Amino acid sequence: MTTIPTDKKLRLASWAEQTAPSPMQDMLALTARPGLISFGLGLPNQELFPRVAFAHASMQVLHNKPHTLQYGPAGVAHNLKASIVQLMKQRGVTTSEEQIFLTTGAQQAINMLARLLLEPGGLVLAEEVIYTGFLQVLEPFGAKLLTVPTCPKTGMDVDAVEAILQAGQRPSFIYAITDGHNPLGSSMSQAKREKLARLAREYGVPVIEDDPYGFLAYEELTIPPVKALENEWVFYVGSFSKILAPGVRIGWVIVPEALTNKLSIVKESYDINTANWSQHAVAAYLETGELADHLDLLRREYRSRRDTMLRAIQSHFPSETRAEQPSNGMFIWVQLPDFVDVPTLLRDAVEQKGVAFFPGQAFETAGSVAGKHSMRLNFSNATHEQIEQGIQAIGELIEAQRTK
Amino acid sequence: MTTIPTDKKLRLASWAEQTAPSPMQDMLALTARPGLISFGLGLPNQELFPRVAFAHASMQVLHNKPHTLQYGPAGVAHNLKASIVQLMKQRGVTTSEEQIFLTTGAQQAINMLARLLLEPGGLVLAEEVIYTGFLQVLEPFGAKLLTVPTCPKTGMDVDAVEAILQAGQRPSFIYAITDGHNPLGSSMSQAKREKLARLAREYGVPVIEDDPYGFLAYEELTIPPVKALENEWVFYVGSFSKILAPGVRIGWVIVPEALTNKLSIVKESYDINTANWSQHAVAAYLETGELADHLDLLRREYRSRRDTMLRAIQSHFPSETRAEQPSNGMFIWVQLPDFVDVPTLLRDAVEQKGVAFFPGQAFETAGSVAGKHSMRLNFSNATHEQIEQGIQAIGELIEAQRTK
Repeated sequence: MTTIPTDKKLRLASWAEQTAPSPMQDMLALTARPGLISFGLGLPNQELFPRVAFAHASMQVLHNKPHTLQYGPAGVAHNLKASIVQLMKQRGVTTSEEQIFLTTGAQQAINMLARLLLEPGGLVLAEEVIYTGFLQVLEPFGAKLLTVPTCPKTGMDVDAVEAILQAGQRPSFIYAITDGHNPLGSSMSQAKREKLARLAREYGVPVIEDDPYGFLAYEELTIPPVKALENEWVFYVGSFSKILAPGVRIGWVIVPEALTNKLSIVKESYDINTANWSQHAVAAYLETGELADHLDLLRREYRSRRDTMLRAIQSHFPSETRAEQPSNGMFIWVQLPDFVDVPTLLRDAVEQKGVAFFPGQAFETAGSVAGKHSMRLNFSNATHEQIEQGIQAIGELIEAQRTK
Repeated sequence: MTTIPTDKKLRLASWAEQTAPSPMQDMLALTARPGLISFGLGLPNQELFPRVAFAHASMQVLHNKPHTLQYGPAGVAHNLKASIVQLMKQRGVTTSEEQIFLTTGAQQAINMLARLLLEPGGLVLAEEVIYTGFLQVLEPFGAKLLTVPTCPKTGMDVDAVEAILQAGQRPSFIYAITDGHNPLGSSMSQAKREKLARLAREYGVPVIEDDPYGFLAYEELTIPPVKALENEWVFYVGSFSKILAPGVRIGWVIVPEALTNKLSIVKESYDINTANWSQHAVAAYLETGELADHLDLLRREYRSRRDTMLRAIQSHFPSETRAEQPSNGMFIWVQLPDFVDVPTLLRDAVEQKGVAFFPGQAFETAGSVAGKHSMRLNFSNATHEQIEQGIQAIGELIEAQRTK
């Protein structure tokens, strides 16, 4: 009989031993406080979800199509793919159902593409300040990150991308949010899009173009995504989370047709297939044709909240503050004067004023200090009154720091 | 200006270059043929889905709870976790909401646990003949597999597990399907469960207990899962796919509370959170109390299909055939006489008789020949008439091979 040692400790994979919950998780817990005004998370406004129309679509599907509750190949909702082809046309992208792969939200799409493209310890190129969920995808790979700066007006520094490629570095892929950047709010200029497309093609380095905010466009003139300029080397990631509702958990990837077989292998190992029920419910909703009006509503509502927030920043934040007007998305990136201690500001804002935001540092890649005196403000999920009141409260705390 | 080389080829991660679609994918395509009798895939019977009750629950949730379409922390449906605690009690497992983590189906749960526990190139212990979806999870890790045989009557060879551990091998985890094994149909004896629990505890090697079929129990006497014997070192994976419907894509893990934080990090990088809508719809369905009757219905229907299939095998297959009666699940594993060429049998069955099944080889781990003369037959997804007709047709083809 073996003796039982009592010092056994569970061994996790080394990345998992070291990892800690993301700031997003903490923020989610924080924002559950009743009465808190939150500019923190990137939540779409749930008052605007087309609940009645969607509930009707869902009901119709459950009644008419028993197989929507069954397993099925990833691509079972062909009518959904057909609708996505039409949606992409509105963004200036010509594609076909054969190039579309459906996923359990855009996050899974990014994770699956990384799984396909990246070796453990591999190399990735991305912006210095970037969506934290992307960094979480890289973590288990122990990936090495090459970073480039981002211009608040024109987006990713594509010359810096070129310099890295010219120097002989070959990342497994380049990650880019080209419209309504998270967290910077920036959209990439046409010239930069063209150059990025050319670099991807010339150097044979794929671009993962993450585009959850492309349809949330607030200006008359919108530019098509990089995907429209380069079909083979740009892998486009789209999502219904911001234009319909996150709860449906449906995203899509547009890749060269040959890659969809590989994606289906990854998909099966991840979660077998994207919920058929959800796929068909979204398809049925899209077939009503109501999305166009719904998008108009979202653009109108979010645009006016954006404008309210920009006006409030101008009124209540110090004159040295810099904040670009985002043409897309849900975020305003605010660069505060150097005297502002942002972590203290956040603590005071939550505790004294009941207002939350994300400090810029939360989005920094390793070694970057680009977010030190910055904050990300979400404007989609608060009322005009909350925006005015919350920004004024933060402004008062900033002034109090100055005079200390 | 750089010249444009035309020989650029997309480089995938090395595992992805080598991988090929699973036999399941091919089978899914095959079974889409109209009129085909399929004993191939492990599909629950969609005629038995509680569609009306579930549609009602879904509708109620969409009408009353707008936040079910919003993002939310993974554990948002506390009432669902409370219901799972009660469900587990029926399996003889005492747990708490704090130990339960909700996932997008059981497949994701297994994938996430592997992500947490396994290093690239790491070591895993499993049965020689095993669920292909598990092998797909291991593939990107380049994991090394230690295997043990399985007894068709009493399950996994736990003495062989002990020998491996005694020899000093320390796999990151042991993977076991303890009830209604896929593909073998076996359920582990009480003595083996006790020994496996003891080995996990003594050697500090966690067991992932994959239990999608535990609630589909066809005998009076059911044995609790290994989880009931060892709470710390057994990570239990449950699923609503086989007892409610796969389309809801909800599974769960029961782990020590300290691990749920780590799981939430993996979860966020995989797909942010499990669809709230689906979580709440399942919770609302469970709160109607209808699941108990529904499980009775499933057990009755599947038991009688199992019995029909066993009788048909006895009538139409050669007398040398061996097939155990499974006490749980959806599968009968059939060991055919050595003269049977199973790949040819499958081809002829599909082409000449319009009947599909899975050859045993599809479930073999590398180096194994344990499935060479075997087949996996699913009995949940066909009518009694189809079972009788399909088994007779396969029996005729087997006889034709004998006399060749």
